[in-house]
Amino acid sequence: MNKPQRTLRATTITMAHGAGGKAMRDLIEDVFVGTFANPDLAQLEDQARFDLAELMQSGARLAFTTDSYVVDPVEFPGGDIGSLAVNGTVNDIAVSGAIPKYLSCGMILEEGLDVALLRRVVTSMKEAADKAGVTIVTGDTKVVPKGKGDKIFINTSGIGVIPEGVDISASNCRVGDKIIVNGLIGDHGAAILNARGDLALDVELETDCQALNELVQTMLKVCPQVHAIRDASRGGVATVLCEFAESSGVSIRLQEEQIPVRETVRGVCEILGLDALYFANEGKLVASVPADSADAVLDAMRAHPAGKDAAIIGEVIESKYNRVLVKTHFGGERILDMLVGEQLPRIC
Amino acid sequence: MNKPQRTLRATTITMAHGAGGKAMRDLIEDVFVGTFANPDLAQLEDQARFDLAELMQSGARLAFTTDSYVVDPVEFPGGDIGSLAVNGTVNDIAVSGAIPKYLSCGMILEEGLDVALLRRVVTSMKEAADKAGVTIVTGDTKVVPKGKGDKIFINTSGIGVIPEGVDISASNCRVGDKIIVNGLIGDHGAAILNARGDLALDVELETDCQALNELVQTMLKVCPQVHAIRDASRGGVATVLCEFAESSGVSIRLQEEQIPVRETVRGVCEILGLDALYFANEGKLVASVPADSADAVLDAMRAHPAGKDAAIIGEVIESKYNRVLVKTHFGGERILDMLVGEQLPRIC
Repeated sequence: MNKPQRTLRATTITMAHGAGGKAMRDLIEDVFVGTFANPDLAQLEDQARFDLAELMQSGARLAFTTDSYVVDPVEFPGGDIGSLAVNGTVNDIAVSGAIPKYLSCGMILEEGLDVALLRRVVTSMKEAADKAGVTIVTGDTKVVPKGKGDKIFINTSGIGVIPEGVDISASNCRVGDKIIVNGLIGDHGAAILNARGDLALDVELETDCQALNELVQTMLKVCPQVHAIRDASRGGVATVLCEFAESSGVSIRLQEEQIPVRETVRGVCEILGLDALYFANEGKLVASVPADSADAVLDAMRAHPAGKDAAIIGEVIESKYNRVLVKTHFGGERILDMLVGEQLPRIC
Repeated sequence: MNKPQRTLRATTITMAHGAGGKAMRDLIEDVFVGTFANPDLAQLEDQARFDLAELMQSGARLAFTTDSYVVDPVEFPGGDIGSLAVNGTVNDIAVSGAIPKYLSCGMILEEGLDVALLRRVVTSMKEAADKAGVTIVTGDTKVVPKGKGDKIFINTSGIGVIPEGVDISASNCRVGDKIIVNGLIGDHGAAILNARGDLALDVELETDCQALNELVQTMLKVCPQVHAIRDASRGGVATVLCEFAESSGVSIRLQEEQIPVRETVRGVCEILGLDALYFANEGKLVASVPADSADAVLDAMRAHPAGKDAAIIGEVIESKYNRVLVKTHFGGERILDMLVGEQLPRIC
């Protein structure tokens, strides 16, 4: 079928763009289908349909995930809500060891939104999707009255294929495992904080927003038995480690001086009395790797652009308390608890 | 793994419930995992993982869809945003002929939300999911500051399996096909309008919100070659028919006296000067069925609770204009165009 390609002439979003009629079709065909440009989406059916048979070799499983993005501001140094929505969901799939394949895109737009901003965000989604090797195959658009939303909220759900034999889980950490991060932590949280202008700091801080699926596959090639991987988004590296400890029934001890933190981020933390271990990341993973493979995994990660600053930051230890401990620069030890209350709202 | 079951003691939602830490875990484990209660979700991994091998017989395909729900009010006669979010996405999968299997649940909550209301909505989702035979396997929760959202927005994405040989598409309508609806149209739109209290009418109007997956399978059993099916949500039956006409390159002629509309809904329409054909439904489908199977399909539909008021309302005709025409009670004919502008915002 040849679909007529509609054009959106409006410069701001009105309620009609969410009403299911002509205005919505103009918006969808021009801005979304026009940008995401793939045959699955162009069908404009209410659901995408695809054949996974070639991927679903015997023993393979599907991974399915969802995330809503409400970050404020919508655009920030190094990214925007669009690249965040694609990479965040790609990463949630990737850390299961799955190869991400298909994404959905559910938009909640606020009446009065600047269409030029929407176009930039959608283009950014397309670029991030291409880079990560995923296709945005289905979508939905709602518009809420001014003051009942905040510019753009995006939900992306995603599907990936977990190869046979891969079994990565937060509950798989074993005593002796090395804890690895793939680079400098806290960049996203610090960048958002700075972009809001509240700090009035004259520093350059960029989000670390990036897809991690290639990096995870690189790690699995070297060590198919990686025990646990999670991306450290909201709640930061500390929260992931607390989840590892609780789910696996182990403790974890970090060496503070081995945790890679950018100087400017460290500065922001010192000024605010915050801990970069709780800062959100959008392109950082934490892995629990069997000790005898840890160096090989680390070398492979460092050879990949998304892991060039990877570091071993601690290890899994035996303890009846299922806690995360940090050995400080000064030789002391402190407990890293799960985040209590809010550190920084609307970080993703 | 035994996970400690956390309890949410708060009575209103605060920003901390979206911050990725302890408060959010309490909310998720108590309200979501506690209610949806299934082993996939209880893993609390960042993605659900499942084996489709037994379903993916040779030739089967996957259907994948997404929808965000922003209905106002959140609770209304006959349903709430939760049952709507489950049935709406189930129906978007079902109308492809697929058997819906797995749903995601992405929540955007407004700071200050009453937790009791949230619990009712989540319980309603669980009940709707059980009834439709789907499992909510993965989720995400964000909280936005008061005034940046409106109580609850829900995104549900869904996965289903399309059996081999099924090929239902809006572009498959053929001249001679009969157009069938499964019952009284416009109930959801009228119920929401009434629930907002603007009409001050003393009538009882309930949403028609229901899952249609069983009904679609019933239809396919009688006639595996049903050409097109769509659920008539936003934009109503009229919009679906305009999409059929445009995608298939045909025209459609309806017989006004055969369109089933409840008396109270007809009354609301007359008062407001609106057309029930544009009213939203949440449990109504429109199908284009080969003429020689139409009566058998109709009988099968009427034997199912979700289709007891099913009716043939028109047929696909040849015409170069790809239009939808309505033959009126008085013998005249009018053109039914796609909805222009907004009829009723936040209907779903």
